Amino acid sequence: MIIDCHGHYTTAPEPHQLFREAQIEAFKKGTALPEVPTISDDQIRESVEQNQLRLLQERGADMTIFSPRASTMAHHVGNEAVSKQWTSACNDLIKRVVDLYPEYFIGVCQLPQSPGVSIANSVAELERCVNELGFVGCNLNPDPSGGHWTSAPLTDRSWYPFYEKMVELDVPAMVHVSGSCNHNFHATGAHYLNADTTAFMQFLQGNLFKDFPDLRFIIPHGGGAVPYHWGRFRGLADMLKQPPLAEHVMKNVYFDTCVYHQPGIDLLFRVIDIDNILFGSEMVGAVRGIDPETGQYFDDTKRYVDALNLNEEDRYKVYEGNARKVYPRLDASLKGRGL
Amino acid sequence: MIIDCHGHYTTAPEPHQLFREAQIEAFKKGTALPEVPTISDDQIRESVEQNQLRLLQERGADMTIFSPRASTMAHHVGNEAVSKQWTSACNDLIKRVVDLYPEYFIGVCQLPQSPGVSIANSVAELERCVNELGFVGCNLNPDPSGGHWTSAPLTDRSWYPFYEKMVELDVPAMVHVSGSCNHNFHATGAHYLNADTTAFMQFLQGNLFKDFPDLRFIIPHGGGAVPYHWGRFRGLADMLKQPPLAEHVMKNVYFDTCVYHQPGIDLLFRVIDIDNILFGSEMVGAVRGIDPETGQYFDDTKRYVDALNLNEEDRYKVYEGNARKVYPRLDASLKGRGL
Repeated sequence: MIIDCHGHYTTAPEPHQLFREAQIEAFKKGTALPEVPTISDDQIRESVEQNQLRLLQERGADMTIFSPRASTMAHHVGNEAVSKQWTSACNDLIKRVVDLYPEYFIGVCQLPQSPGVSIANSVAELERCVNELGFVGCNLNPDPSGGHWTSAPLTDRSWYPFYEKMVELDVPAMVHVSGSCNHNFHATGAHYLNADTTAFMQFLQGNLFKDFPDLRFIIPHGGGAVPYHWGRFRGLADMLKQPPLAEHVMKNVYFDTCVYHQPGIDLLFRVIDIDNILFGSEMVGAVRGIDPETGQYFDDTKRYVDALNLNEEDRYKVYEGNARKVYPRLDASLKGRGL
Repeated sequence: MIIDCHGHYTTAPEPHQLFREAQIEAFKKGTALPEVPTISDDQIRESVEQNQLRLLQERGADMTIFSPRASTMAHHVGNEAVSKQWTSACNDLIKRVVDLYPEYFIGVCQLPQSPGVSIANSVAELERCVNELGFVGCNLNPDPSGGHWTSAPLTDRSWYPFYEKMVELDVPAMVHVSGSCNHNFHATGAHYLNADTTAFMQFLQGNLFKDFPDLRFIIPHGGGAVPYHWGRFRGLADMLKQPPLAEHVMKNVYFDTCVYHQPGIDLLFRVIDIDNILFGSEMVGAVRGIDPETGQYFDDTKRYVDALNLNEEDRYKVYEGNARKVYPRLDASLKGRGL
């Protein structure tokens, strides 16, 4: 089967977005936060069937590891209470999509992060989503300030309480920033890719995986700038007297295939071990148009991967096996259904 | 001939660095800034002949477009007066290298930028370096805060006074950040690459080159994440209703070849037009070791370019012609010497 590890609910029904706007407005005015809105199953069906589900089927994939829209996590907006309410509403909506289409979607949660607030305060929502909602992973924002980068690096001990829970629950995190409130950084054109590169370099500099040998991260968008500069990173590991990357980082870090042209995908597979690549499309997401050079959607990454003509073993790893390995709760869920 | 567009004086004699330390100390104490130290020609010769000049000759290149060490520009340290004194000392030292080895080096200046200080205050040093010292370009730091990104994007009108002078003098700028005082960003492993990606996306979002059709930028380190994600950027231009990149950005923006492995160089040349690529090595710079996979220096980028087996015309462009075009004052200088 073909599992897309990176899909967002970018098409949530309008009441969800209106609720968010009302919430921010209430926060600004200092009034009580609004109630989470009622959204019907039909509204959810319509939003998914015309978009993610249609595209998934048209492109020939089987299921998506599905999480709330990344750009609107916006941890920098409001305060901790605002972030908590918004996050649980977003995650609950993912759960409803999964319940409507359990063969096609499985949930990954956003977290109620907030600048200056301990990541330990996100543990409860992770537990709720995994233990009660059946989610299989989370999206961890290395920069809840939204482009001002005021937090400690991901290798800092302040993140450890969360990592302990991830290991205990056996769930991975995708390192994923949200929108940018720094006018230097376009969200999907700069901030996302910069965060990917930054996170990888933090892992390279630190020794996080000595403390957490079972911790697993997916760095999305093909690993940011990392595969293109693989020689630079290998050389930096050497200069910083760290072990080779294969040993020091790549037992715990995975890249997805959200790279929107054939030459980029070719490079990714040329330099990164096949065991570290998970199929993903970020669909419906950052780039929604059709490439005039190919006549196909930019984010139809399955076409690029198919064009590699991988052997059966490698193809299985990228499309299914690696996802089952990185998300053991997905694997258990599939096995529970005889898959 | 073979021109390396990206070399830094990372090996300046010790008194230069001691002066910097004394200068920062004086700033902290609020005492008078120290005098710029006396450095002998022999000290300069030793520092260059054992390093940049030796490597240049060993690797078979002919000359380097040479600028002060980028990581120690450190515009975030001290204040405007400190930055001015340090910058002129750094640029004067480049001039001395050029005077000692005029066949091998030609100067590019750093600028006395300082966070919160208008870029207009850097115009005088650019004029001095170009008109009096014979330099052919400058390094422009899009983030003088050193990783906090507190300035306006490069497309903002606040940068325009400097661009007007660049156009008047007919010199390009390499977009080059300095060290990072944000613990999230390793300088050469994250901050440099992020800045490259960020600058490109700013150019994509804005319309700077409508206002300055003759303005030219080199984005170093192979363009950061951009060529690897070329499809993403083409798609974003489309989504943002900008013209195609070839028209909107790539008449004014060039990438160097500071990508430290063969697959990265292969990708760069596969997706970026040959007219937009300038040979560079960033030597002696970010990565100084030997790649155990090849037995050669990571930053010996000429080997990777040579391995492409370009035809004569393309080889000429990358190694010489594009540099002459982007740096017309270099071209004039070479022609003045019958080259």
